[in-house]
Amino acid sequence: MNEWNMNEILDQILPFIEEKNARATLEILATLHNADIAELFPELDLEYQLFILSILENEDSAAVLLELDEEYRRRLLKNLSSKQIAEEVIQELESDDAADVISELSDSKKQEVISEILDEEHAKDIVDLLRYDENTAGGIMSKELVKVNHNKSVLGAIRSMRRQAEEMEEVYSIYVVDDNDKLLGTLSLKSLLTTSSNTKIADVYNPRFNAVTVTDLAEDVAIDIQKYDLFEMPVLDERGRLVGHITVDDVLDVMRDEAEKDYQMASGISVDVDMQDNLWTKTKARLPWLFIGVVGSLVSSRILDGNLGAMEKIPMLILFIPLIAATAGNMGVQSSAIVVQSLAGGTMKGSLWENLGKEIGMGLISGLALSVLLFAFSYTMYGDFLAGVTISISLFSVVIVAAIVGTTIPIFLDKRGIDPAIATGPFITTSNDVIGISIYFLVARLFLGI
Amino acid sequence: MNEWNMNEILDQILPFIEEKNARATLEILATLHNADIAELFPELDLEYQLFILSILENEDSAAVLLELDEEYRRRLLKNLSSKQIAEEVIQELESDDAADVISELSDSKKQEVISEILDEEHAKDIVDLLRYDENTAGGIMSKELVKVNHNKSVLGAIRSMRRQAEEMEEVYSIYVVDDNDKLLGTLSLKSLLTTSSNTKIADVYNPRFNAVTVTDLAEDVAIDIQKYDLFEMPVLDERGRLVGHITVDDVLDVMRDEAEKDYQMASGISVDVDMQDNLWTKTKARLPWLFIGVVGSLVSSRILDGNLGAMEKIPMLILFIPLIAATAGNMGVQSSAIVVQSLAGGTMKGSLWENLGKEIGMGLISGLALSVLLFAFSYTMYGDFLAGVTISISLFSVVIVAAIVGTTIPIFLDKRGIDPAIATGPFITTSNDVIGISIYFLVARLFLGI
Repeated sequence: MNEWNMNEILDQILPFIEEKNARATLEILATLHNADIAELFPELDLEYQLFILSILENEDSAAVLLELDEEYRRRLLKNLSSKQIAEEVIQELESDDAADVISELSDSKKQEVISEILDEEHAKDIVDLLRYDENTAGGIMSKELVKVNHNKSVLGAIRSMRRQAEEMEEVYSIYVVDDNDKLLGTLSLKSLLTTSSNTKIADVYNPRFNAVTVTDLAEDVAIDIQKYDLFEMPVLDERGRLVGHITVDDVLDVMRDEAEKDYQMASGISVDVDMQDNLWTKTKARLPWLFIGVVGSLVSSRILDGNLGAMEKIPMLILFIPLIAATAGNMGVQSSAIVVQSLAGGTMKGSLWENLGKEIGMGLISGLALSVLLFAFSYTMYGDFLAGVTISISLFSVVIVAAIVGTTIPIFLDKRGIDPAIATGPFITTSNDVIGISIYFLVARLFLGI
Repeated sequence: MNEWNMNEILDQILPFIEEKNARATLEILATLHNADIAELFPELDLEYQLFILSILENEDSAAVLLELDEEYRRRLLKNLSSKQIAEEVIQELESDDAADVISELSDSKKQEVISEILDEEHAKDIVDLLRYDENTAGGIMSKELVKVNHNKSVLGAIRSMRRQAEEMEEVYSIYVVDDNDKLLGTLSLKSLLTTSSNTKIADVYNPRFNAVTVTDLAEDVAIDIQKYDLFEMPVLDERGRLVGHITVDDVLDVMRDEAEKDYQMASGISVDVDMQDNLWTKTKARLPWLFIGVVGSLVSSRILDGNLGAMEKIPMLILFIPLIAATAGNMGVQSSAIVVQSLAGGTMKGSLWENLGKEIGMGLISGLALSVLLFAFSYTMYGDFLAGVTISISLFSVVIVAAIVGTTIPIFLDKRGIDPAIATGPFITTSNDVIGISIYFLVARLFLGI
């Protein structure tokens, strides 16, 4: 494992940075990966961050910038001229990363930077990529790839690979196209190395391939790449021509973002935050959900207010309010989480009714088990048979309803094109609290005649 | 996108399968990826599943088996002899996948299958891999890789690559080792293709590389591969010798499993389930958490019981029990989710105290905002100034304490080597419910003198 101790490195490097000793600073930085250097930045003043960028090779400073969190990158780019950004950053990045960086700039600076890019091909690729929504295949693909015409020989393919691959860090497969750039198949470097050099490409390429279209959703591409164990996926335009490709590392980012987003939504956090974020970012991401919870609970308080008379007659009812609310919430969160995860993983099958049937089955078993437990406890504790039966029946009904609500809402949202993840977490617990408490008193009034 | 409609395919293929028409069945299967064929299996009777496996080429039936969910694979393997498993399945898989399949067999069958493997090298690799824990680098690495001695020429490297790569689906980089198999660096196929054939490997390989040790945790390897944008990672034994490598697709599985596990834990689901699982699997995964919630709520009911007198005097206190419990739960889930995610993503920095400080800061702001809202509502609604102030102060205290509990417990568990994800979801909501209600009545008694 590439173990490194950030604090140790900071202790060593800070004195050199403070005295602007470029040579000594670089000597330490040379032992670090660019992703590690990026991790030092949040610990440094802006002035020192700019110093490090200025002494690194352009290639490295561009890579460090790319690894930074958006807020740090944005601050640094504000301190660079459009010409500097174009020459020292954009020129050094592959088209997809370059487009990502440019898309974060203000509209006026965006134009300035693009006009300062000297490599016209690169500028054209970037402008092309900026057209696509960031959640589509077009938005995450890169334009740099190696393609050869199917009429070439293996030797010809190796030659054109050398030329095309000059600017690419790594090549994993070669795309085979016809005269109109229509994708015909792929060719692995392994087969290039193991085939005699005058063989025609048309005779050796693999005609079976998966491909996506620029407008396909990035998360669907991620599911496919994972399902079919691919390292890369070619991207075609609407007319079937090869326009870019997506590599598995791009997909790792999509997957992580998706998983984090779903997880955070389920926990009542609306945007990507972590422990390093400042108070304001965290509060903005969390307070609205707490607020929803409080407002929902104020609705519950009104329902309780309407049932104060019943509680006065049978005070035992008060004792199980938290139990009803908590169980409704827990059950609803479980049901919705399974739906959301099945939708995200592409493993959702069957109709709403089938899935609902299964969930209700699960609700019947769990509801029965928990109700029996509750009855045993309450009857032992308070000896009131009728009240015990009543609250147990309440719990049973609440569990079933919570399962139905938890399953239906995310499926419904998904069908409407809304991200079902918003239906997990505080939203579902809060609504199930309200529903649960309503059912509780409805059943109590019915059975106990109050 | 590789669109395929499972129901359509089933309609076409089922009649052929039922009449055991191998040719017509194969014709349809030929249009599908093995991962798609695997998705058909849950819809078919065991007899038909076995029929499909028997008519597919060994290579394909092994791949289909690998893609299946464990329960389906297990059932099918029970119907194959040890000899069949060894020859038709294990022989066709790379060592890491083969070891995964074998590890699911009973101990006696495991031995039988291994002894039936004809390729001794393959058998040795598998036995080697079975030694490692499945959560370590050794447990997810494969032994198939291409390595060359640094003293060889480029031509010699290409020759040994051809020989070693025969059994491998794809080769992405070549590992350069010394006479003792110690890893010196890597060589990309791209550079092999672009270097003259008599150059010595020692002159062209890249000596900078990341590597992990067999005992490193799989999830840490996943973090590194992602952080450094790698396609593969060499795995060394305790003495620094190259023993295997991990490719990014292995890591995708680890990442997905981790993300799903954390998400499900946060939702109160203890093992991997999805909508397709049967009632019993789902119930087993979910009921224990619901049970924890109910038991916690029974504790709450005892606390409420002890405060019935106070509620009799000031019935308004009853109305905000759900609010206190819900807000404590929501706040605790948010805090713990951020900790768990920072730990999982390797972005956790600073001491417990620093992180706690930030969380308390966030609690102060949120607590204040929510308390003001609650006071405004309760005073407007019920006109009791002192009671309004009291419940608002309660809410404020509860929010702070919930933030502290939510942050501390997962950090503490992680330090003890326990998966902090168990501290999210029902566990944290339930304990915060109990703590919240206790604080609520403590503050009420203090301020209202009851």
